[in-house]
Amino acid sequence: MIKIDFDKMGGLIPAIIQDYENGEVLMVAFMDQKTLDLTLKDGKTWFFSRTRNKYWMKGEESGNTQEVMEVLTDCDADTVVIKVKQNGPAACHTGNRSCFYVRWENDQWVEHSKPLFDPNEVYKK
Amino acid sequence: MIKIDFDKMGGLIPAIIQDYENGEVLMVAFMDQKTLDLTLKDGKTWFFSRTRNKYWMKGEESGNTQEVMEVLTDCDADTVVIKVKQNGPAACHTGNRSCFYVRWENDQWVEHSKPLFDPNEVYKK
Repeated sequence: MIKIDFDKMGGLIPAIIQDYENGEVLMVAFMDQKTLDLTLKDGKTWFFSRTRNKYWMKGEESGNTQEVMEVLTDCDADTVVIKVKQNGPAACHTGNRSCFYVRWENDQWVEHSKPLFDPNEVYKK
Repeated sequence: MIKIDFDKMGGLIPAIIQDYENGEVLMVAFMDQKTLDLTLKDGKTWFFSRTRNKYWMKGEESGNTQEVMEVLTDCDADTVVIKVKQNGPAACHTGNRSCFYVRWENDQWVEHSKPLFDPNEVYKK
């Protein structure tokens, strides 16, 4: 029986969140056993924040939640790919559709930011 | 100027390797500064193996190298997505096209393995 291996990263695995329609990688975040279980059960994506040291559900503040369509793991069961239906315009807290809007070009990182919402309006303090 | 943040994982970042043609996630591995630099310069994918504690180039044994087509990083620059042209039939050392051939189905992980080569022949000792 396959079991996810959380030991390599001290209890965490990377979770690659991919748009189920076009394959775009929307974000990468981390899950522990509890947030993986929650994600599988709840059908929404849950993560463990390394910087804030807390559990969070994607979209809990912005409303831009993610519906889990398919969950895959790899040959050594230490990573998951989660295909989602992204609710709302964008996955990234910057307002960009994907967090991966920075491209390596001519020996430097270049931002190609096209925000679809205003973070200051969506994430009110 | 954007700089990749290797500090969150003790010198490593996850690298998501994606087929540039159809968006399939082929594998996830880890890079340090040196292997990211090598990848950007060399145009092939280089990684740091956590279990073997060594540098390796994808395909160095099997010949199934990966040509780097596009490199992206995310909003907090602690992960990279690398779009590649996969040489040879498959990316996974098991012979499967992608390492992500295990799907969550009816509350368990189910293998959907369709090897495109025989690992015992490709990885000769």
